[in-house]
Amino acid sequence: MATPRFPDDQVLPTGGRIVLIVLDGLGGLPDPESGKTELEAAVTPNLDALAARASLGVHTPVAPGITPGSGPAHLSIFGYDPSTHVVGRGALSALGVGMELEPGDVAARLNLATFDADGNVVDRRAGRPSDDEARRVVATLRGELRPPEGIEIDLEVEKEHRVVLRLRGRGLEAAVTDTDPLVEGAPDLECTAIEPGSGKTAEVVGDFLVQAREILADEPVMNGFLARGFASWSDIPGYRDRFGLRASAIARYPMYRGVAKLVGMEVPDVPANSAATIDVLEGCFDAFDFHFLHFKDPDTRGHDGDFAGKVRAIEEVDALIPRVTALEPEVLVVTGDHSTPTRMREHSWHPVPTLIASELARPTADRFGESACRGGDLGFLRGTDLIGHALAHAGRLVKFGA
Amino acid sequence: MATPRFPDDQVLPTGGRIVLIVLDGLGGLPDPESGKTELEAAVTPNLDALAARASLGVHTPVAPGITPGSGPAHLSIFGYDPSTHVVGRGALSALGVGMELEPGDVAARLNLATFDADGNVVDRRAGRPSDDEARRVVATLRGELRPPEGIEIDLEVEKEHRVVLRLRGRGLEAAVTDTDPLVEGAPDLECTAIEPGSGKTAEVVGDFLVQAREILADEPVMNGFLARGFASWSDIPGYRDRFGLRASAIARYPMYRGVAKLVGMEVPDVPANSAATIDVLEGCFDAFDFHFLHFKDPDTRGHDGDFAGKVRAIEEVDALIPRVTALEPEVLVVTGDHSTPTRMREHSWHPVPTLIASELARPTADRFGESACRGGDLGFLRGTDLIGHALAHAGRLVKFGA
Repeated sequence: MATPRFPDDQVLPTGGRIVLIVLDGLGGLPDPESGKTELEAAVTPNLDALAARASLGVHTPVAPGITPGSGPAHLSIFGYDPSTHVVGRGALSALGVGMELEPGDVAARLNLATFDADGNVVDRRAGRPSDDEARRVVATLRGELRPPEGIEIDLEVEKEHRVVLRLRGRGLEAAVTDTDPLVEGAPDLECTAIEPGSGKTAEVVGDFLVQAREILADEPVMNGFLARGFASWSDIPGYRDRFGLRASAIARYPMYRGVAKLVGMEVPDVPANSAATIDVLEGCFDAFDFHFLHFKDPDTRGHDGDFAGKVRAIEEVDALIPRVTALEPEVLVVTGDHSTPTRMREHSWHPVPTLIASELARPTADRFGESACRGGDLGFLRGTDLIGHALAHAGRLVKFGA
Repeated sequence: MATPRFPDDQVLPTGGRIVLIVLDGLGGLPDPESGKTELEAAVTPNLDALAARASLGVHTPVAPGITPGSGPAHLSIFGYDPSTHVVGRGALSALGVGMELEPGDVAARLNLATFDADGNVVDRRAGRPSDDEARRVVATLRGELRPPEGIEIDLEVEKEHRVVLRLRGRGLEAAVTDTDPLVEGAPDLECTAIEPGSGKTAEVVGDFLVQAREILADEPVMNGFLARGFASWSDIPGYRDRFGLRASAIARYPMYRGVAKLVGMEVPDVPANSAATIDVLEGCFDAFDFHFLHFKDPDTRGHDGDFAGKVRAIEEVDALIPRVTALEPEVLVVTGDHSTPTRMREHSWHPVPTLIASELARPTADRFGESACRGGDLGFLRGTDLIGHALAHAGRLVKFGA
């Protein structure tokens, strides 16, 4: 779980202010009639004016062809490569369902599974139950579980058979083995400690899995769990240490606040409307070097399959831009965490339009959209590369070598 | 310090001749009036004619957002990734300040630091002195140091608190530990040998650091050193071994000659004018497979903030191109080591325009400049990728797999 640091003599303690505006699910696919994506169809005079003084590009959040969840996608644009295990899968899943994680917590991914009378796994995914079916079982468990003294156990359904487990209490570490045998017809594996400090976790997990089998004994299909991807997150170097940035995350939804906290951003409270995001920014602008602003609606309308609605959601953010530029941040980055084409009603792998507006940009177009960004000076970049560009434009990196 | 080799059965012993022309600091930023960069504003009929029969692209020397010094930037376009410790930081720093390195030398980076009376480090950077303040202290040291018998110790100020140390003498190896404790309020660490052959180096360094503390005892702030990044450079596979190329470096300045020697290029003497570079090339063209030609002036004018001067410097190189093409190298690469926008008066991270002219190119424009290169067939590439393209165009690589 080692995260490469920017060498400490390469990041300066001072420099320009950076604002990162994320329109969730920004990227799209062209409407078959007009040939324009949602962003290209939107009337965005303010974003277009930014593009005219920005370096443009498109970013791939995780890897070519990979559709990211919002957790990994945000980690990536924050500068942390989610594919190199910066954050364990269990912790990502916890953040994904809006479970808060604190240093010392251990999270894991559970599969609801079907066991036969001999204790062999006959279906590793318990027939892929609906989310509601899974929630019913998890609710039963929550009511009847008796955690060991001093330990809190929390469960949330992620999707279908996938459930997130969070353990909280003293002395828990995450170096324990998975119980998923990865094949059917065999019993589950024992959860054992790989490192001495994780013995208590192995014990708590073992006890939890036995209790779950007992409580669910009368369930015909969802009668037990397989556990994997144990993770904690106390060892990730945060924004202050890694990039020299005092960072705030102005975001309303728990998952984005959680990922931001994970990398050491402060998370002020945000009332429930988009304009309030800017009110909060104005209130704390001078207190931070870096502000992350999150706008959820473009993604939500994308999931709804509502092209016109996503266009409107983008235009609503555009209307707020002048209040941001009035604060005169030296660097203003606008991008999405991933694409959510309305035609797909889901996240996708398509590259995400990106602009970095600063005095040191190399502008190539006066329009913000997929087509304009594709020909820009940032080229095709990985999500994790964004932060390096932003720091450079803010004058926050020293030269590499003389 | 392992350098990945091109698998040795992939490089052929014969093939076309390659000329690599580096215009130092070539990339720029657009003039606000004309929207054109220095290279785009220059009248370059010969480079444009090359572009028309070249594959075009832009390269990022080290990593996105990273502004390289000239040493790492040249290593990168020579095919050696400076960010993966191909060359120790100490050796790079030595080359960066124009210190010659020979096999067997050991170089390190020093920080001027402030120690309190108990020997604890109270400021790891000695208050970031000016270069002149640091030079005064280093001059004092040079006068009073008594190196051990048979050892030469040389010191040069790199920038502010950063100083380069070079040790020369028999029996020195570089496998010793850093003395920088990385935190303040603690004493510096002992320099110890990690491998048996480095015992003498550890002793010499320990003695040097004690002497420096004694000589600087009356300095209120710059009263000692922290040392790190010990490196020698005898173990880098050179151009002959790695790429099958007999290579010459036709460059006037010590730093570029030093980096070229580091990778096994021969460095003929070059009189002090740009045309002489071509005279030397003509004289030794047939004796080598690869020629690196270095032109410094575009970078110098960039540092001066002289847009028109940088334009002229580029046009002067353009005027020499016909003498190069008359020699009919099979592959002619023209690029910069990094950008030096006149507006910034410094190196920058912006991608660098690049052309590879050969019979096997895929031309996309008849103009050499940032905009034209951005849309070219080479795309956005890392500096280290250039050599692979050059070798391919020269017919010097065999097929990978059947």
